[in-house]
Amino acid sequence: MVGHYGIEKYIGKPLRMEPLLIAKIGVNIIDNEQALNSFLTDLAAIPGAKLLVHGGGKLATELSNQMGIPTQMVNGRRITDEATIRVVTMVYAGLINKKITAQLQAKQCNAIGLCGIDGQLIPAIKRPVKEVDFGWVGDILYPQVNHTLFSHLLRDGLLPVIAPISGDAEGNLLNINADTMAGAVAQALCPYYNVTLVYCFEKNGLLANVDDDNSVIPNINTLSAEALKQNGTINKGMIPKIDNALQATNAGVQRVVIGHARHIANIAAQQNGYGTTLEQ
Amino acid sequence: MVGHYGIEKYIGKPLRMEPLLIAKIGVNIIDNEQALNSFLTDLAAIPGAKLLVHGGGKLATELSNQMGIPTQMVNGRRITDEATIRVVTMVYAGLINKKITAQLQAKQCNAIGLCGIDGQLIPAIKRPVKEVDFGWVGDILYPQVNHTLFSHLLRDGLLPVIAPISGDAEGNLLNINADTMAGAVAQALCPYYNVTLVYCFEKNGLLANVDDDNSVIPNINTLSAEALKQNGTINKGMIPKIDNALQATNAGVQRVVIGHARHIANIAAQQNGYGTTLEQ
Repeated sequence: MVGHYGIEKYIGKPLRMEPLLIAKIGVNIIDNEQALNSFLTDLAAIPGAKLLVHGGGKLATELSNQMGIPTQMVNGRRITDEATIRVVTMVYAGLINKKITAQLQAKQCNAIGLCGIDGQLIPAIKRPVKEVDFGWVGDILYPQVNHTLFSHLLRDGLLPVIAPISGDAEGNLLNINADTMAGAVAQALCPYYNVTLVYCFEKNGLLANVDDDNSVIPNINTLSAEALKQNGTINKGMIPKIDNALQATNAGVQRVVIGHARHIANIAAQQNGYGTTLEQ
Repeated sequence: MVGHYGIEKYIGKPLRMEPLLIAKIGVNIIDNEQALNSFLTDLAAIPGAKLLVHGGGKLATELSNQMGIPTQMVNGRRITDEATIRVVTMVYAGLINKKITAQLQAKQCNAIGLCGIDGQLIPAIKRPVKEVDFGWVGDILYPQVNHTLFSHLLRDGLLPVIAPISGDAEGNLLNINADTMAGAVAQALCPYYNVTLVYCFEKNGLLANVDDDNSVIPNINTLSAEALKQNGTINKGMIPKIDNALQATNAGVQRVVIGHARHIANIAAQQNGYGTTLEQ
């Protein structure tokens, strides 16, 4: 294989790209202190380049209640008014982001807590008002995701911990869907890294039978996902999660898995039998 | 001067170090929307490498009150209990840090909002309990300030915006004095940059007569500061500010100035007649 090294040197680009693990965790892990600590211990021990995107948690709703800010929901989605964007910025980009970063540091993992506006990592625009005005909610400007800065941070041995907050060109802070954010980062980095994107949640994967934890569907693709939506196997909160995962796969992300947070090490090590892998 | 370039190349170190402006702003600017916006506009327009350390604001006290958390003060200093470290992390490292970062981005200045734990930028330890237990308050581990990561960020054209929060090796978040933090960063970077450290506040400098804005004392040093403390010219909140500034000067920071936030551009441009310059 000596020849390979020669070619690599010649074209100035490695033939085998460095692996990069991008994990996304949400409310079910963040709100459970033991589950979060266990997940972060596992993540810290995984070798190689890593990146973590986290969602919010019940804390934002609790804090809103304490501050007397009413939570407005339309079709199950939170409306982000002026008071709410302040609360989610405090909770997501402040407390949750820095707690996770501090915990990773304590586990000898050099984390750096950031959000989408920092270094223009993940630029966004305010979502245009159609039937519903979602308020200070952002849509990611996919082509502008700053893969250069991400690469520099990773090359410095850092683990970026990303909160689901970004901003627009006018300096407004925006609330971003964390699943979408993880997908956008994976898409931006997959030309430069061999990316594994793992959507961690509280199930072992996409279950054929929601009451049977062992009924994990090992692989799905756009076509089979459509059939599973039709028959109700993919429903409710799983629909946007699967759609984000499929979008990442179709955009070229090398490996996208939906699985249990406690299996992150197994999934990262490409062991069989863990999670649902998305295929084109 | 051709010879100089030759020497530079030979010893691998520039003879003239790149200038770096480190500005620190506190509650009086942060809590005044117009003053903050005007300051950030001026800062964004200053050429060269820059770094901003910000303090807190009344918002932390307001939020504590809304949440029913009592503010405990001993000798004019806040006690940071468990509930309070959560509030200050949310307010300082969350809302204030990201608002400033977003506003700088909107002014075409590529800011990156961070706190002391991120990338182990400014490691700290919990302050040992002596007469008073200050709770989750940290003392900076000066020799461990991560000048390498700061240099990498600055080389990437980024303006680090630093919140006065850090953490210890056990993963605990700690409240840090922002004046001290700015001084520690300046000390860590002065071997690599030609640093100007500016403590911005709401006066034109150290005033000989507190009622006369034009009575700015242009220069002080350790000896004259001692005399000014004795006669009461330096009193109350100015004492720790001057002490931090003198410490930075004595530790080798090239230029340390205490001045009005609205004069930041004049001070950065080394114009005469602005602020009080600290000397060894």
